[in-house]
Amino acid sequence: MQIGIVGLGKMGGNMRERLRRAGHTVVGYDRNPELSDVGSLVDLVDKLEAPRHVWVMVPAGPATHTVIDQLASLLRHDDIVVDGGNSRWTDDERHARELAARGIGFVDAGVSGGVWGLQNGYALMVGGDPEHVDRLRPIFEALKPEGPYGFVHAGRVGAGHFAKMVHNGIEYAMMQAYAEGWELLENVESVDNVREVFRSWQQGTVIRSWLLDLAVDALDEDEHLERLRGYAEDSGEGRWTVEAALDHAVPLPAITASLFARFSSRQEDSPQMKMVAALRKQFGGHTVESAKEK
Amino acid sequence: MQIGIVGLGKMGGNMRERLRRAGHTVVGYDRNPELSDVGSLVDLVDKLEAPRHVWVMVPAGPATHTVIDQLASLLRHDDIVVDGGNSRWTDDERHARELAARGIGFVDAGVSGGVWGLQNGYALMVGGDPEHVDRLRPIFEALKPEGPYGFVHAGRVGAGHFAKMVHNGIEYAMMQAYAEGWELLENVESVDNVREVFRSWQQGTVIRSWLLDLAVDALDEDEHLERLRGYAEDSGEGRWTVEAALDHAVPLPAITASLFARFSSRQEDSPQMKMVAALRKQFGGHTVESAKEK
Amino acid sequence: MQIGIVGLGKMGGNMRERLRRAGHTVVGYDRNPELSDVGSLVDLVDKLEAPRHVWVMVPAGPATHTVIDQLASLLRHDDIVVDGGNSRWTDDERHARELAARGIGFVDAGVSGGVWGLQNGYALMVGGDPEHVDRLRPIFEALKPEGPYGFVHAGRVGAGHFAKMVHNGIEYAMMQAYAEGWELLENVESVDNVREVFRSWQQGTVIRSWLLDLAVDALDEDEHLERLRGYAEDSGEGRWTVEAALDHAVPLPAITASLFARFSSRQEDSPQMKMVAALRKQFGGHTVESAKEK
Amino acid sequence: MQIGIVGLGKMGGNMRERLRRAGHTVVGYDRNPELSDVGSLVDLVDKLEAPRHVWVMVPAGPATHTVIDQLASLLRHDDIVVDGGNSRWTDDERHARELAARGIGFVDAGVSGGVWGLQNGYALMVGGDPEHVDRLRPIFEALKPEGPYGFVHAGRVGAGHFAKMVHNGIEYAMMQAYAEGWELLENVESVDNVREVFRSWQQGTVIRSWLLDLAVDALDEDEHLERLRGYAEDSGEGRWTVEAALDHAVPLPAITASLFARFSSRQEDSPQMKMVAALRKQFGGHTVESAKEK
Repeated sequence: MQIGIVGLGKMGGNMRERLRRAGHTVVGYDRNPELSDVGSLVDLVDKLEAPRHVWVMVPAGPATHTVIDQLASLLRHDDIVVDGGNSRWTDDERHARELAARGIGFVDAGVSGGVWGLQNGYALMVGGDPEHVDRLRPIFEALKPEGPYGFVHAGRVGAGHFAKMVHNGIEYAMMQAYAEGWELLENVESVDNVREVFRSWQQGTVIRSWLLDLAVDALDEDEHLERLRGYAEDSGEGRWTVEAALDHAVPLPAITASLFARFSSRQEDSPQMKMVAALRKQFGGHTVESAKEK
Repeated sequence: MQIGIVGLGKMGGNMRERLRRAGHTVVGYDRNPELSDVGSLVDLVDKLEAPRHVWVMVPAGPATHTVIDQLASLLRHDDIVVDGGNSRWTDDERHARELAARGIGFVDAGVSGGVWGLQNGYALMVGGDPEHVDRLRPIFEALKPEGPYGFVHAGRVGAGHFAKMVHNGIEYAMMQAYAEGWELLENVESVDNVREVFRSWQQGTVIRSWLLDLAVDALDEDEHLERLRGYAEDSGEGRWTVEAALDHAVPLPAITASLFARFSSRQEDSPQMKMVAALRKQFGGHTVESAKEK
Repeated sequence: MQIGIVGLGKMGGNMRERLRRAGHTVVGYDRNPELSDVGSLVDLVDKLEAPRHVWVMVPAGPATHTVIDQLASLLRHDDIVVDGGNSRWTDDERHARELAARGIGFVDAGVSGGVWGLQNGYALMVGGDPEHVDRLRPIFEALKPEGPYGFVHAGRVGAGHFAKMVHNGIEYAMMQAYAEGWELLENVESVDNVREVFRSWQQGTVIRSWLLDLAVDALDEDEHLERLRGYAEDSGEGRWTVEAALDHAVPLPAITASLFARFSSRQEDSPQMKMVAALRKQFGGHTVESAKEK
Repeated sequence: MQIGIVGLGKMGGNMRERLRRAGHTVVGYDRNPELSDVGSLVDLVDKLEAPRHVWVMVPAGPATHTVIDQLASLLRHDDIVVDGGNSRWTDDERHARELAARGIGFVDAGVSGGVWGLQNGYALMVGGDPEHVDRLRPIFEALKPEGPYGFVHAGRVGAGHFAKMVHNGIEYAMMQAYAEGWELLENVESVDNVREVFRSWQQGTVIRSWLLDLAVDALDEDEHLERLRGYAEDSGEGRWTVEAALDHAVPLPAITASLFARFSSRQEDSPQMKMVAALRKQFGGHTVESAKEK
């Protein structure tokens, strides 16, 4: 079937390619003319036959708002917009309402897959009306991995991004779990080959996983990770997961600890630990390090 | 080759079977005569040709101490004892010293695999002198899963149990990660099919793993886990992991949070939250629930 | 000076009384005619001479929005509204803008003091333009405790409620700290008098505090807190503190742990621990408790 | 009454002085002859009349073991040793047994007070037989602050150090609580005077405490703590508190988070966050910082 894609970065570009390989007709638009199939969003809409389907794959937040605003005025009754970016689930309701006012459908799609997606397929979590989701099913089938997994219609509008967000929250804590175990093993004298311990875990253990496989790949490249800094960004979805948990009074101790570990990793010096040092100095005459001694 | 196994419970019994299928000669002893091949530990030792190899597979702590004490007096110079139980790594040094005083070798083996081990093999993490480990290699080869993974000589005596202990610590945090994500999804109205969300994650996602597969199996049996209580024991290895981290000043926030969540799950009522309630009542006249109202 | 107070509950009523004792003229309005000095908000405004000052002391959220909306239409240029409720700091900017459009000033005041406030004074943290804060200074002076502490002009609009919110976040973690220590002491056989340990800490220790005094009072009423349930509500400000931390990428491990402990305390059974139990059952054949056995 | 003190460092020296001011006869011994009243431990014992009382005030661990071993051979039936150092409670049982074998009594005393102790008194938490504790009561009375607080006979041998250890665990979490709140306030634009916010809290708030007073003192010296590094040692008692909690399956989320924050503060670069960065790089092609770029 026909589909437009707005945003042809690493993700959008590979998705266009995977859809074409599956025989679909894709019209892609990107601000960068070297990547784009058409000269403008107007051109993209013109090239699609009604009812149109447009997959938005641009950064979450203002960029997505802008594209959806533009599509709201360019598309017609019965067309459908898919937001495949990493939008916050609360944005979905707004976008759906805005489009519904003009009779345009909306589906939110959380997409996992990263750099392997082109070859292995993308895991898709989607939210929206069953009718809208059904119309897009050939597209989802082409994008998802082969086999029985990798696609779910999770619920109504917002459910797709919510599910993807929770996926990322879980991911944070799993990464933290392996990371904590690795640091502890690296600290213990009796264990002299942590990398091989990790490798051995890839089969027959309770903790085997794709992330573990990646950890072994990373250790094969740099056994003690000496070429990296202990510094990790967070993409926003971890924070949203914790915010959603606060809204629902759900305790998330491991996921939140993992997020806070990333926050701390980005601080040159910890303000709160300065206060702890200051208090120790006040009450105990404890020796503390001054900033200069660093 | 020949090997004795002491302890023929679920794990030991299956390991005897897997070794026999691989062509090894196994003499098993268990206090339960219905499981045992011989009438006593003395018989077991008598049936093995020197140099003997005896794999101890009994509960960690006093039971293991007793068996190793007995073997210390029954075995001879050049024999080797393997402790395949869940012993604390600090016990290994003691056992190794005690046996070394009589010229007997010692290898500690952390074993993962549970009820699938008989069929799929057991992941093994071992510690000990290279010479001792090498002599037992045919046994390890028969027990481990096929393929390049599932076995590691992690380091000197203690390293095997240490690596297995860290494996379990990581396992705690991974289980907690999925559990937190599941609870959050179950709380959100927009998502109407949490089980299918979990199922979809089994392919193409960053968080696919064997534990995720098990989660889906569990949800297939009982979609909202209504037949279970939110109650989880801990086997000791999680606590030891945290203790080891304290010894080495390694922060383990996610693993420790997972362990504490288990502690809390086992309390009928939380004493510390009684104190929080008491303080709220004192300073704010906040309404609190009395024990009777429960 | 003259001031109106809207909302004469436990806090508002006592503040009216404290202001009157200090010689100020207070006109109070409450929906409950038994508490109210006047019949309506219109009456309250009529009774005040321009420029008017109205202190709003109603529940945060919709109730506060409604009162401020009404005051926006009843008050005039140069009047000032004070929000002394537990509003979220993000509401303050909205209220200030709405009022400023009509030339009315706005000051947000975080108030601490609870049931002791009438007698000992209320700690006040206020935000707003210096000019507005200065006009209200006689009122703040009358409400605050005697002495050099208990009042701060923390910054611009929103700063008062933000400072009060952080105060409450710190309060959560301090309460949790004493509560954890108390539970641990109650569990240890060698210590036979935990209440007296707490009492002894009231002087000469690093951890002496007003909260500790309250803990001793609570233990004097009920030595082992047997008459309370381990159940604690949260007032919203703890969650907002964590949300603010997420916005600024500040790690708050102790405060967040304290909040999550309250969430857990309110669950009859923990869904996430059901999932942990389910996973243990799947991979290990571990015995778990069924809901029925409970 | 008469008492010997072994160890005349900052704590022991001030305690000698406070006891002398109260009219007691103190014989002090220190390895440093400039501090010592006598030339040797033998001399100290000789100078005391039976039944003797010796207060040991040396670093916990080997130094304390050595002194108590020596006293075991120098003292006689009916004498009493007090360990006033920061010993682990598990050491107390050992020391008590060793001394009891010779008829010598043992009392463990947790001491809080730091540099203010000489003037304000030391908070004392003691463990031991009532008979031994009673004999030392004049000494405890002289050391403790005036008033009804600051002394407790917490239970049998070990209870004093256990109570002091829990005191320190609570202290860690309280310090962390203020530190987290301070960092958050320092990050927020609307609040322009964090130091004054802290100062205002010293009266009329729920979180007023001695530690808060010290925080204000610290901010008065260095408003944004720019002269300190965010680096905090831990004295051992925090770790022991967590270990005791593990032994008793008591969850200590806030205290443990506070301890881990100190561990992290001492790492130049976080190994575990290197692993997180490595995993992000593997699965997402995320940009990570190399060690060089630092």
